Amino acid sequence: MGPHSTDEVPEAKEEIRSLSSSHRHTANLPYIHKVGVPPKQNLFKEFKTTVKETFFADDPLRSFKDQSKSRKFILGIQAIFPILEWGRGYNLTKFKGDLIAGLTIASLCIPQDIGYAKLANLDPQYGLYSSFVPPLIYAFMGSSRDIAIGPVAVVSLLLGRLLQAEIDPTKNPAEYLRLAFTATFFAGITQATLGFFRLGFLIDFLSHAAIVGFMGGAAITIALQQLKGFLGIKNFTKKTDIISVMHSVWGSVHHGWNWQTLVIGATFLGFLLFAKYIGKKNKKFFWVPAIAPLISVVLSTFFVYITRADKKGVQIVKHIDKGINPSSASQIYFSGVYLLKGFKIGVVAGMIALTEAVAIGRTFASMKDYQLDGNKEMVALGAMNIVGSMTSCYVATGSFSRSAVNYMAGCKTAVSNIVMSCVVFLTLEFITPLFKYTPNAILASIIISAVIGLIDYDAAILIWKIDKFDFVACMGAFFGVVFASVEIGLLIAVSISFAKILLQVTRPRTAILGRLPRTTVYRNIQQYPEATKIPGLLIVRVDSAIYFSNSNYVKERILRWLTDEEEHLKEANLPRVQFLIVEMSPVTDIDTSGIHALEELHRSLLKRDVQLVLANPGQVVIDKLHASKFADEIGEDKIFLTVGDAVVTCSPKLADEV
Amino acid sequence: MGPHSTDEVPEAKEEIRSLSSSHRHTANLPYIHKVGVPPKQNLFKEFKTTVKETFFADDPLRSFKDQSKSRKFILGIQAIFPILEWGRGYNLTKFKGDLIAGLTIASLCIPQDIGYAKLANLDPQYGLYSSFVPPLIYAFMGSSRDIAIGPVAVVSLLLGRLLQAEIDPTKNPAEYLRLAFTATFFAGITQATLGFFRLGFLIDFLSHAAIVGFMGGAAITIALQQLKGFLGIKNFTKKTDIISVMHSVWGSVHHGWNWQTLVIGATFLGFLLFAKYIGKKNKKFFWVPAIAPLISVVLSTFFVYITRADKKGVQIVKHIDKGINPSSASQIYFSGVYLLKGFKIGVVAGMIALTEAVAIGRTFASMKDYQLDGNKEMVALGAMNIVGSMTSCYVATGSFSRSAVNYMAGCKTAVSNIVMSCVVFLTLEFITPLFKYTPNAILASIIISAVIGLIDYDAAILIWKIDKFDFVACMGAFFGVVFASVEIGLLIAVSISFAKILLQVTRPRTAILGRLPRTTVYRNIQQYPEATKIPGLLIVRVDSAIYFSNSNYVKERILRWLTDEEEHLKEANLPRVQFLIVEMSPVTDIDTSGIHALEELHRSLLKRDVQLVLANPGQVVIDKLHASKFADEIGEDKIFLTVGDAVVTCSPKLADEV
Repeated sequence: MGPHSTDEVPEAKEEIRSLSSSHRHTANLPYIHKVGVPPKQNLFKEFKTTVKETFFADDPLRSFKDQSKSRKFILGIQAIFPILEWGRGYNLTKFKGDLIAGLTIASLCIPQDIGYAKLANLDPQYGLYSSFVPPLIYAFMGSSRDIAIGPVAVVSLLLGRLLQAEIDPTKNPAEYLRLAFTATFFAGITQATLGFFRLGFLIDFLSHAAIVGFMGGAAITIALQQLKGFLGIKNFTKKTDIISVMHSVWGSVHHGWNWQTLVIGATFLGFLLFAKYIGKKNKKFFWVPAIAPLISVVLSTFFVYITRADKKGVQIVKHIDKGINPSSASQIYFSGVYLLKGFKIGVVAGMIALTEAVAIGRTFASMKDYQLDGNKEMVALGAMNIVGSMTSCYVATGSFSRSAVNYMAGCKTAVSNIVMSCVVFLTLEFITPLFKYTPNAILASIIISAVIGLIDYDAAILIWKIDKFDFVACMGAFFGVVFASVEIGLLIAVSISFAKILLQVTRPRTAILGRLPRTTVYRNIQQYPEATKIPGLLIVRVDSAIYFSNSNYVKERILRWLTDEEEHLKEANLPRVQFLIVEMSPVTDIDTSGIHALEELHRSLLKRDVQLVLANPGQVVIDKLHASKFADEIGEDKIFLTVGDAVVTCSPKLADEV
Repeated sequence: MGPHSTDEVPEAKEEIRSLSSSHRHTANLPYIHKVGVPPKQNLFKEFKTTVKETFFADDPLRSFKDQSKSRKFILGIQAIFPILEWGRGYNLTKFKGDLIAGLTIASLCIPQDIGYAKLANLDPQYGLYSSFVPPLIYAFMGSSRDIAIGPVAVVSLLLGRLLQAEIDPTKNPAEYLRLAFTATFFAGITQATLGFFRLGFLIDFLSHAAIVGFMGGAAITIALQQLKGFLGIKNFTKKTDIISVMHSVWGSVHHGWNWQTLVIGATFLGFLLFAKYIGKKNKKFFWVPAIAPLISVVLSTFFVYITRADKKGVQIVKHIDKGINPSSASQIYFSGVYLLKGFKIGVVAGMIALTEAVAIGRTFASMKDYQLDGNKEMVALGAMNIVGSMTSCYVATGSFSRSAVNYMAGCKTAVSNIVMSCVVFLTLEFITPLFKYTPNAILASIIISAVIGLIDYDAAILIWKIDKFDFVACMGAFFGVVFASVEIGLLIAVSISFAKILLQVTRPRTAILGRLPRTTVYRNIQQYPEATKIPGLLIVRVDSAIYFSNSNYVKERILRWLTDEEEHLKEANLPRVQFLIVEMSPVTDIDTSGIHALEELHRSLLKRDVQLVLANPGQVVIDKLHASKFADEIGEDKIFLTVGDAVVTCSPKLADEV
């Protein structure tokens, strides 16, 4: 049966048998399995479930169910301070792992912090401050076991960019610093608020592809910025786009470059990259790239100290304040023009920091298979930045590179962060003066070798393979950052991500179904060329919820399928289409506009003397079909459980004409 | 079988038989129907199809296919001027219908135009102008047969509001008029551009529900505005929100009201409403409400003329310019500060006008079952407003009320618009002076009785029944317009519409499936309580494309289903879950983030010693599963055509443990 089945004669008989067999109850007996109409749930319940799925999808309160008051209280405290929970099960073996991991990431973070602080146009010590307090807070409140907290390259760059757009850090550094703390404070507020109000899903709107592109672009931008320290260029552009950076690099090639700096930088960059290579080559040497930065700092500092290369124009750190974080609570702007500016910057920086931290947290959580409550994480990160903003820290979050090292070094819990912050504490107390002669070139090299890891070719290639549209988003973000600015790149990334969602709901796919030989299964004839159409029937599947944004398109698209089919049949003078079966399985929801579209479709079909038949409408849809009386309009008997049922019920009626 | 099936013992045997029977080829023979992997289409083709479906979904060029050059040219001309197409088939019988319809809508539009012009803070004649030129243009370019073109209440109000926010119409009317023309010009440009670039689908983002609410709110606002003329209040508020209107109404109750005006207004309002009632009661008296306005204008004008009621404070129209539209091309602002303002206003007004016209066009098109190319319509409407802006017209569009009358009066083609505009022409040339004594109260009554029709209770009730979220959007728009302003209401409507789309893609539904007794069909156990689970299996259906916005949610939701099930099984000490079957039928697409989510899901499941099985991935999805190598990762043999196949293949493996 079916126009094409002539080349399937051997199967024909088989086909018929299987058809009738599995539909014994439908074809021969009167009984057809009705489409289930679930008990109408009342409005409040409906509303409750929606809210629950939207904001409490992860069912955070499940452990609280039927517990005593006191128990609930304890659980509540534990929910805020997970350390109380896992702390009790803590033991020496775990500590060993955490100790080693903590020391490793400490050795990695100290030089990075100094460099990242420069990215944010801040003095080196603020980088170290941000690796002392925030990790401690996080260790008590956070639920990720592998994340390494501290300043990170991308956020530092973003923050620096946004801040210097408001205040010139060289002209009035004091105000700049205050604005930085203000931004950090509001970044924390933003994160905590999102978490507290369970709005964590908002960050999901920045798609993976967009992040890959954005990170890659940021990495390149950051690396380019390092050319200043790497080549020892004095007057360097304030812009970050590749054009103006390259311009000021080549502009100063003859007089601006300092060869001693270049030599030192290049040597150690080579060393760092080689260390990275070893680490990649053999996983058990992960510690080589981890401690390489500190080694190169020590060596280069010593080298500069004995050769006094700083006299020959090799720029050095010069001075880092000794001692731990001073309080900065009083410095935050809670009024005046900078309040709003700080707030805006804080929101942006906070969101980006959040995106990075949550991405890291999820990755490692799924590696070790433990659940991570995104919203609780946000509260922890928020609290840590709020406290940070009052103790001279700037926005801290989870670092990709250090977290990976932390994981490979065999960390067991957040204690590794405590260990790290203790080391940073000792550094601040005793060692900082020794950084005096550290050449900036080294910091540049360290940052370059660090951010290179953020450029993820493979991911980009995979994205290209999987989803072209994602690739556009990825490249959009990438080039936006590289050629325009971090902010623009971010904007492009977000807007393309949204455009994709909107496009999806505006132009859903539709497909013509045919029966697979020797089954009662109906599938897309494009995907299954062997599937055969049933004469007199047209089976269309709509691949999306029918909403106002696509209802009209869906209606017209279905009618166009019908028109095409009718033309085709006329040419081949085959029996005309009598039934249009709409397979509704993928139609997960329908709204008022959708119902109207169906009604219009029904009307147009009647004019063409074609019957509208629906197959397998889902729970919500069938509810609404009844609520809107459309079910009665086309007739209950036109709604079937499966396409198969619909076909066997319609085909006999065809017989008398065919 | 299945935990619940104990109470289905009689069916059990039957079940097994039907199961195996339809899956003879799967259970007994080695052969299983493979999931189709369609031939990989090249990038360009892929891209082409996407663009086609997005912008040329209605396949506007189908008639051009394989035609000679000259024929193509003719078709092209006809595409721009459909009148050349249907004009050739035009005959006397059609003309009869159009003539009657034309005269009816003319009698309706003349008084309305004068009133609507006041809504836009323009002199009465501009309303008439806008019913003369635009309908002519539309008749040649438009493809709707039933729409009646001219000024409409809502757009007039919106335009008036937006314009007077920029320029005070009483202080400097000349500039106000120029800005009005500028806005009209850019409204036309907007409409034509959207149509030309096939961006018509953009207006679909204003949901039906939102429009219902917006229209209702606008109707009330307009009615309230009429109280000025209706009660003859001199100093009336400029605001449109109900609070301030009521305030200025009650404020002027003792001295401000004019009882003669009130009497005249009330009498004729009663008459008009009665006429409306008759028209509703008996469809063949549709002409009664249609001509009632003109009658009441004539009567009241005559009445005022003989009683000279205007001496007693009854406000009258006083003066309408005689003669047809003067050119206004030179008055449009093509430079200066008002260019941008005019542009902004034009875009908003143009979009709203478009929404109304297209909604009307589609409604009647589906009633008479003829296709309407939304984008071509937009070009026609745009052209008509561009020409209009140069001939002293303000934004014209399709009117709900007049189009309905046009339809009921039996119009056949756009000729009815030509007839109407001829009548308007004669009016402008000869009759306008007679309107001198027409009391404003009558115009107020006419507008009130006209806009009442825009309040669509039934639609609102239906929306409430069908979709609560839509209802929120509807009410949001309604109260926004009534209590704040037209602009705010519009903003609310659009944002809620978007929020809905985003919510849908962020929190898709998931469902647990069970087998329906005596079939091999698997359905949502909530919708079909009789459906039974299969021991050792958990079948989850994901009801949406898996995108970055929901991938993480989907993953965690599925894992939670599993956790819940495992707990439940442990309590009932039943065999543990060995296979998690994900029914992918509704998963119409998947992106990179989605693939990653699946990978993470797979990893977590392995840790729990549960096998991941996919059922019926669609064309796009299977493509991407292969592109990303995920198909190999879980194993080709874990991907099945149907849930049924998956179950019969997994169940035997269970046997040895159960």
